[in-house]
Amino acid sequence: MPRDPRYDILFEPVKIGPVTAKNRFYQVPHCNGQGYRDPSAMIKMRENKASGGWAVICTEQVEIHHTSEITPFIELRMWDDRDLPVFERVTRVVHDQGALAGIELAYNGMNGANFYTRETPLGPSHLPIATFTYDPMQARAMDLSDIRDLRRWHRNAALRAKKAGFDIVYVYAAHGFSTFQHFLSKRYNHRSDEYGGSLENRMRLLREVTEDTRDAVGDRCAIAVRFAMDELMGPDGITKSEAEEVIGRMGEVPDLWDLTMGSWDNDSRTSRFVEEAGEEEYVRGVKALTSKPVVGVGRFTSPDQMVRQIRQGLLDFIGAARPSIADPFLPKKIEEGRIDDIRECIGCNICVSGDMTMSPSRCTQNPAMGEEWRRGWHPELIRAKESDARVLIVGAGPAGLEAARALGQRGYDVALAEATTELGGRVAKEQKLPGLSAWGRVKDYRAYQLSKLPNVEIFYDSRLDAAQVLEFGFDQVLVATGSTWRRDGVAHHHTLPMPIAADADLLTPDDLMQGKRPAGKTVMLYDDDHYYMGGVLAELLQREGFVVTLVTPATEVSNWSRNTMEQFKIQARLLELGVEIVTARMLSAVRRGAVETACVFTGRIDTRPSDSVVLVTARLPNDGLYLDLKARSADWAAAGIVSVKCAGDAWAPSTIAGAVYGGRRYAEEMDAADIGDALPFRREIAELLAD
Amino acid sequence: MPRDPRYDILFEPVKIGPVTAKNRFYQVPHCNGQGYRDPSAMIKMRENKASGGWAVICTEQVEIHHTSEITPFIELRMWDDRDLPVFERVTRVVHDQGALAGIELAYNGMNGANFYTRETPLGPSHLPIATFTYDPMQARAMDLSDIRDLRRWHRNAALRAKKAGFDIVYVYAAHGFSTFQHFLSKRYNHRSDEYGGSLENRMRLLREVTEDTRDAVGDRCAIAVRFAMDELMGPDGITKSEAEEVIGRMGEVPDLWDLTMGSWDNDSRTSRFVEEAGEEEYVRGVKALTSKPVVGVGRFTSPDQMVRQIRQGLLDFIGAARPSIADPFLPKKIEEGRIDDIRECIGCNICVSGDMTMSPSRCTQNPAMGEEWRRGWHPELIRAKESDARVLIVGAGPAGLEAARALGQRGYDVALAEATTELGGRVAKEQKLPGLSAWGRVKDYRAYQLSKLPNVEIFYDSRLDAAQVLEFGFDQVLVATGSTWRRDGVAHHHTLPMPIAADADLLTPDDLMQGKRPAGKTVMLYDDDHYYMGGVLAELLQREGFVVTLVTPATEVSNWSRNTMEQFKIQARLLELGVEIVTARMLSAVRRGAVETACVFTGRIDTRPSDSVVLVTARLPNDGLYLDLKARSADWAAAGIVSVKCAGDAWAPSTIAGAVYGGRRYAEEMDAADIGDALPFRREIAELLAD
Repeated sequence: MPRDPRYDILFEPVKIGPVTAKNRFYQVPHCNGQGYRDPSAMIKMRENKASGGWAVICTEQVEIHHTSEITPFIELRMWDDRDLPVFERVTRVVHDQGALAGIELAYNGMNGANFYTRETPLGPSHLPIATFTYDPMQARAMDLSDIRDLRRWHRNAALRAKKAGFDIVYVYAAHGFSTFQHFLSKRYNHRSDEYGGSLENRMRLLREVTEDTRDAVGDRCAIAVRFAMDELMGPDGITKSEAEEVIGRMGEVPDLWDLTMGSWDNDSRTSRFVEEAGEEEYVRGVKALTSKPVVGVGRFTSPDQMVRQIRQGLLDFIGAARPSIADPFLPKKIEEGRIDDIRECIGCNICVSGDMTMSPSRCTQNPAMGEEWRRGWHPELIRAKESDARVLIVGAGPAGLEAARALGQRGYDVALAEATTELGGRVAKEQKLPGLSAWGRVKDYRAYQLSKLPNVEIFYDSRLDAAQVLEFGFDQVLVATGSTWRRDGVAHHHTLPMPIAADADLLTPDDLMQGKRPAGKTVMLYDDDHYYMGGVLAELLQREGFVVTLVTPATEVSNWSRNTMEQFKIQARLLELGVEIVTARMLSAVRRGAVETACVFTGRIDTRPSDSVVLVTARLPNDGLYLDLKARSADWAAAGIVSVKCAGDAWAPSTIAGAVYGGRRYAEEMDAADIGDALPFRREIAELLAD
Repeated sequence: MPRDPRYDILFEPVKIGPVTAKNRFYQVPHCNGQGYRDPSAMIKMRENKASGGWAVICTEQVEIHHTSEITPFIELRMWDDRDLPVFERVTRVVHDQGALAGIELAYNGMNGANFYTRETPLGPSHLPIATFTYDPMQARAMDLSDIRDLRRWHRNAALRAKKAGFDIVYVYAAHGFSTFQHFLSKRYNHRSDEYGGSLENRMRLLREVTEDTRDAVGDRCAIAVRFAMDELMGPDGITKSEAEEVIGRMGEVPDLWDLTMGSWDNDSRTSRFVEEAGEEEYVRGVKALTSKPVVGVGRFTSPDQMVRQIRQGLLDFIGAARPSIADPFLPKKIEEGRIDDIRECIGCNICVSGDMTMSPSRCTQNPAMGEEWRRGWHPELIRAKESDARVLIVGAGPAGLEAARALGQRGYDVALAEATTELGGRVAKEQKLPGLSAWGRVKDYRAYQLSKLPNVEIFYDSRLDAAQVLEFGFDQVLVATGSTWRRDGVAHHHTLPMPIAADADLLTPDDLMQGKRPAGKTVMLYDDDHYYMGGVLAELLQREGFVVTLVTPATEVSNWSRNTMEQFKIQARLLELGVEIVTARMLSAVRRGAVETACVFTGRIDTRPSDSVVLVTARLPNDGLYLDLKARSADWAAAGIVSVKCAGDAWAPSTIAGAVYGGRRYAEEMDAADIGDALPFRREIAELLAD
């Protein structure tokens, strides 16, 4: 299909200093948890995006000098020339696809503990370092000689970047992660020399380094400044008006402005807390301050929204990190008039959790993320079928939908049997909870893809038992029947059932999602799950008028949501709604009208009245059908069944991303050769030097 | 000096199945934060210990199969034959020193999230995984075919270990980190098949795998079982009597029993919470249950204590992890009659924090830890002096003491000027705080070493100013004058001073350590430092009869102490002492008799009366002398001064380990050649494969 002319503006070339981007799609620098440990995996992921039509592909942050590193986090390193081969390959694969390659040089300074190198972190002032943790080493205030060193190191890095073939070289002053931002912000810069005090002084280092970089490599490379528009801290931090003043004063110094928020958690907000284009108020007006192109982000997945951003003069480039992870081929799909094929980012930040856990970022929508190199998975393509096998998939949740979609794409005949009258499984239910509506895109994307596949047939209202499956006689069977929230209290802290009175009013998340509500007014929600569900359900019930107390054995609400940068926002929202929060207490017994809890530290018991109890604990896989079929494996041959597998939460309850991945993996491996005990993926390991 | 005959028993050879250990010093498996990322660094560290006299040197845990890995933590991997060269080098260097090499094969199962490989964690039951975090994926209960797979994977790993040349092959069932322990423990094993229910059933997998391992490699390798003696959870977990029953039933199956506690935090307890030999009550009696040698740990650094453990029939081997890190040459020093030269572990667990932060483990006592390969530092040796330079060191805290000791060892003439009448700086003060007495060993070791060095002269009561230093005319000057706790509220959350009434009764940790006490009865201790100091001072004051409220903007007390595995114990102790704990609140103003705090989530303000306030916040380096000298650099040449440097907290406040390291680094680098912008250490990086 040809491109809709409405979107032509998105495909205009844009000049950035000495280079030209072929269109307005700009993959801004983003972490991916692979970095220096898994360089080829990182490179193949970038290459796929370049082939998906992005005009600019940037690296994640690159540590430019060993005096500033952010262990335990795994980004890229350019500490000396031994690191160059990785960067040379990045630029080669990006250029091969006609895209520009950008590199985000980073000097984190007081944002890193230097746990690996043991160097003293440097910053504008003598202050505790500003990491996500409370690391017990302070930064040392840089003197003028340190500043000269840093300028030289940055220049060295820019020269290496040019040597590696990069087209765009970043000066990074954003997200709270960069020394140049630390110098800008009054909260960190307590200096009284020419680098502190007035705004002109506080921006001096940023200006100097930008000029240094231009002087060093500006003949061939564009210079970008990635810049924090607001630290959201009021006058103690960088405000929008201050940020605008900086751009007003040095707007023409770089070749491009890449606008962000002052901290990562406020930049990459989830759909639970902000809509698409959520940074508009912060970038509005910047283009009037500079003639240079401006890139900004906003979890853009709608081409109409993108066009509006350009037409209204807000941005020149549609920046994207997460939408480019969820759909590396987003630009190409718009170009080819395949808008409905866009696999939209759901804004869940499971990708961020990869970086936070020092592991390859995964994506709920794009299960190929992180598997491009090591398993050879492609975000859009999959090899054709290898037989005429017919496949039965039981359950149309995230795993079943993805398996059906991918096997359908491969050309297999697939029957998808769903017990209810709708697709989506847990996603169909969870998307109705407060703040989670965008999660429905997991279902929407796959439902549309399936609608285009004549070889996939969907059967609703089809709850199957083993006898029926054996009767149908498919060659391959996948059971993807989801999971059920436990009602016996078993979870992280209690791994054995707790005493629960039979007449207690007790509900699980399944009950609530099915519309059931507590019998009484006061509700104790016990969260020993620690991801989003407890907080979301507390919000739901409190908004509906129940008086909710959230009790958790952790020391904070939704603790694992730190990994999606939501924990703070969740706890703040619940407190503002009036939810009472009781931390560091385990539920020890449920009675009718009362609950007993124990302090996790001392074991001291406390009893408090509560009309009703909601248990957000562990889940049990709905693997009954799978086990029944396994128990009847002697009957398979007669029924024509070659194999029966299980995937998604029915195999082991996990994230939605885990379920989608399980479905994709089944589709990739259903007909794969048995490799025995060999390692089923490629990896790169440390090259052993002489001892 | 010859060995004291009292200690002869420690040097008896002991047979372990088919191999023989040359003495009773046994370095048990321990993590070190280097693992697969930094293999040569890990190997050199082990090699040094082998040369220091340990009869057995073991690796850290080794992931034997890609279906169980513990990302983000960095241990070793033996996923296929590509990993063999690392292990072959381990055994070669250990054997070269006449020691035996052990390998701890690990299948973590439900103890790992498999963030890297994305495999489903396996365990005895359908349960949330048991990591330090609340990761949102559950383990799947293994079926009989999974159990057969695991047995085969373990056997494959044992064969690889034998091929690599190991003498001792472990079956790991300890610390909560191993599937074999998970199967043993009722709290995780809910099975009803032959692997669940009775103890005989729950221990079946451990027994089978031990037998498999012996069958596979027992002809040449000794088989060790590392075993949890008590999970300290009462009847829900493994109790000592149950553990003894297991050993009673399979005591003769392995060739050695390596005894531990059921969780790592209860095994590697700090000196703040347990004395040397703290596991005696758990291992007592085990030797009666088996004819095989038994190794146990207990932070042993006293040879008399070690002898007692052997003579009383508690242990056959003196196991050590931390004491072998603090002093890799501990056995050799006992052997050579140099007891007073032992550098005793202080039990601070800063080594553990390395593993917890995925970074090379460091050691407060042994600054060479982690630098053996990359910087060529040796725990005992250092190159001779290269000139007749005379060195002045100002300040006899951890940095100054270590610099003086190491430069003295090199042969330089050193003058150590201390402003007070005692050595130790912060350590001399902190060792008097509750639970920290063992930290005095930092000072004691160095004071004794200095007493043996005629070329180091110590001057007490010598507070120097720049004019005096210039007058003395040393060639090299090191300023190591420590730091001062701030009294303006600046720390992690407030980076700008807060409103503090001039007439408020306000104290800092320095005040308390100097003997000053609050004027009133009620004390609010504000901890925005988050390591040990806040909790220790709250304990001190509460024990002295003050009524203490500890307020912290974190959601728990002493949050960073999670990295030393102390957080839980600290908060429990404070609660048991009656300290009131208020979390997630920032101090916003200090008035006379009252404090104002704000909820970190909502900003809501609260005022509460308090007679006195203790601020445990950030510190300021005492770098006045250093800056004065720098300002007078024009006068150096005339004074004969070549360079003036600054180290330890005077450079940037950090841990004691950081200060000791700074002192050692000065001694290593004082006369090193200028290498410009080259990377000053070796590293190993991922070997880039074809794309």
